[in-house]
Amino acid sequence: MNCSIISVGTELLIGQITNTNSVYLSQQLNELGISVLYHFTVGDNKSRFELTLKEAMEKSDIIITTGGLGPTQDDLTKETIAETMGTPMELHQPSYENLCRSFIKFNKPMTENNIKQAYFPKGCIVLDNSCGTAPGFLLEKNRKIIITLPGPPKEMKTMYQGHVKKHLSEKISSVIYSRILRVFGMGESQVETELNDLITNQTNPTLATYAKEGEVSIRVTSKATNLSEAIEVINPTIEKVREKIGQFIYSYDNEELKEVVAKKLISNKLSISLAESCTGGLLAAYLTEIPGISSSFDRSLVTYSNMAKVNELGVSEETLDKFGAVSEETAREMALGLKKNTNSDVCLAITGIAGPDGGSDDKPVGTVYIALAFKDKVICNRYNTWGDRNRIRNYSCLLAFNMLKNALDNDNKVDHQL
Amino acid sequence: MNCSIISVGTELLIGQITNTNSVYLSQQLNELGISVLYHFTVGDNKSRFELTLKEAMEKSDIIITTGGLGPTQDDLTKETIAETMGTPMELHQPSYENLCRSFIKFNKPMTENNIKQAYFPKGCIVLDNSCGTAPGFLLEKNRKIIITLPGPPKEMKTMYQGHVKKHLSEKISSVIYSRILRVFGMGESQVETELNDLITNQTNPTLATYAKEGEVSIRVTSKATNLSEAIEVINPTIEKVREKIGQFIYSYDNEELKEVVAKKLISNKLSISLAESCTGGLLAAYLTEIPGISSSFDRSLVTYSNMAKVNELGVSEETLDKFGAVSEETAREMALGLKKNTNSDVCLAITGIAGPDGGSDDKPVGTVYIALAFKDKVICNRYNTWGDRNRIRNYSCLLAFNMLKNALDNDNKVDHQL
Repeated sequence: MNCSIISVGTELLIGQITNTNSVYLSQQLNELGISVLYHFTVGDNKSRFELTLKEAMEKSDIIITTGGLGPTQDDLTKETIAETMGTPMELHQPSYENLCRSFIKFNKPMTENNIKQAYFPKGCIVLDNSCGTAPGFLLEKNRKIIITLPGPPKEMKTMYQGHVKKHLSEKISSVIYSRILRVFGMGESQVETELNDLITNQTNPTLATYAKEGEVSIRVTSKATNLSEAIEVINPTIEKVREKIGQFIYSYDNEELKEVVAKKLISNKLSISLAESCTGGLLAAYLTEIPGISSSFDRSLVTYSNMAKVNELGVSEETLDKFGAVSEETAREMALGLKKNTNSDVCLAITGIAGPDGGSDDKPVGTVYIALAFKDKVICNRYNTWGDRNRIRNYSCLLAFNMLKNALDNDNKVDHQL
Repeated sequence: MNCSIISVGTELLIGQITNTNSVYLSQQLNELGISVLYHFTVGDNKSRFELTLKEAMEKSDIIITTGGLGPTQDDLTKETIAETMGTPMELHQPSYENLCRSFIKFNKPMTENNIKQAYFPKGCIVLDNSCGTAPGFLLEKNRKIIITLPGPPKEMKTMYQGHVKKHLSEKISSVIYSRILRVFGMGESQVETELNDLITNQTNPTLATYAKEGEVSIRVTSKATNLSEAIEVINPTIEKVREKIGQFIYSYDNEELKEVVAKKLISNKLSISLAESCTGGLLAAYLTEIPGISSSFDRSLVTYSNMAKVNELGVSEETLDKFGAVSEETAREMALGLKKNTNSDVCLAITGIAGPDGGSDDKPVGTVYIALAFKDKVICNRYNTWGDRNRIRNYSCLLAFNMLKNALDNDNKVDHQL
């Protein structure tokens, strides 16, 4: 079975609010194994809503609408659906009584326009609204299921969970299961080329790649009659992906690189200190986002000026003069100075040119050096990154986390004491 | 003129990501005076995208698509538009050369599927992508304007601001002019109460408030036949807002608090150093986002562990034992130790409990102390913030920037030397 979601409300079309209802419903429907084919958003406008409703009915088995159920003139959802389906409206006595009771309870006059909240298309199931005044409804006619929910997210979610989910589950005989693999160090097109035969010949499970800020995710999705079967269907494909590009996959459970690194540090009881220049504290900020990192993270010395590099890390002025603040020599001295200061198990130093100014032919904007002192060795890599200041700083952090991850992965036997 | 927005991407239909592109574009188009009639979302599916495109073209003058511009097989936007419009695809030589150059620069193999990123519908204007590899395009045909933008929000926004906005503005006969005033230290409902008569009686200009992560923005918008007239219409209202709540407004030009502070530091030739605990480098990361800050920013010592506070800042172990790492006493010693180390004109220290653990009755999660050493005086404030770890860290940075801003505002005569 498939579904279209129609969100009704002018506030969505002027960008005043974000459409989180469609996100929530899409997640819920996919979990049930119902494919969502389209999202539509229309304003509080009868003719445009009617047109959209007709188009959605041509395209899908289930249509869920959100919004436009209130008492005011621009709330047109119910009336338009009844008209489009050729169904008259009628007073729903229990809803009418509920409505009267709530006005008595809050001691407010019930204006005439409120009564329209108790009218529904004939033959529908009225869905009680436990968090607000406007009930929803569910109408099956001409082999289509129309479900109408209120716009406020809390009312919508409660009504979905309380009424709609059970009704739809009974119609469905399959579940959908997804896993997201995360890749660093390969571009999206390269990932696709490597996985080309898996992608081309896919039916169940399906494989899709997408890129985000220097990283690539691979979504593997299976469909089966129950969860354990869906997992069984997915596993061989995940194994094939692992065989092909496993060395670039840092998470099989949609974790971020910083999370993976933080968990390794914490579970291996390793202390870490940072020395940052171009990232200006961002690397430390990312790492300290993770709750519990205080057992591993000691400090970050954000030495932006040359004087700070000399004072805080003991970088020699000669090195800065001869090779510059952005150089392998400076990066190494930063890491070694940090190690001397802190004696942390892992000491990482980063220096680079984030731009927009400061580049040269030899070292253009985007040049980054990362040095890592770990287990009596210092390694240093040079990276050529690109983009604006923000992208360079962010990508530099990913490079640093990736370097940390690789070093920690290669360090199987850990005998350090924090 | 009116517009429909089509978002392309299966990840939207499974609820993996939220459609923020439509929100952004709707805001921008409404500001230009272009009505947005519909949002559509479709997956990476040729026939469904084609159908949606045709329906959107029947309904609106301008169609903006986002997503589906990458190099992979499921990126179908360009080809489908060309087919639907009856326009052949052709190689765009400058894009091809750009593409080759970027692969050479990063020393990566250019797989064949990448070349498709250099093909465009004949006769279109190719829109350069300064933040990614896939360019967009703008095609005018049969009295319709089709604008195709990449899916990643940053690329999309940059392309809209850099190319699309100007093109659309020229098509419109009236101008819409907005100014955004930014407020810190007042809640949204309080701002609304203070400005109630201005909001209620508004026609042209209009006034709207909206809240975002602890801040409030006020958008004042006017409509006129030309820009100078629109500015003339807006100015008296801005003056009235200033009279009522001017002391809480930190920018009349939609600047962020960190920008305002960075500009003041740079223009007053003041050096600054930071000592951070709970913010874990985030304060330094925010400040160093601003290009040019290197002339003022010396260093940040992110002293997460107690040992780091003792070693790097000379905080006494007695103070830490007696009052704790989160206390006025520790914050003051951090600021003074930093001043001693760096002799920076402005030295700010921050310590607090970001959670989720570590709170007590006296000092619950969210307690933050900020000490500022400036002009031979140290002041220290205690703040009680709330929310999750991320909100507390972010809001702590806003509090620190606000404290810096107030100190710098009160310091009219500057005789410091950097």
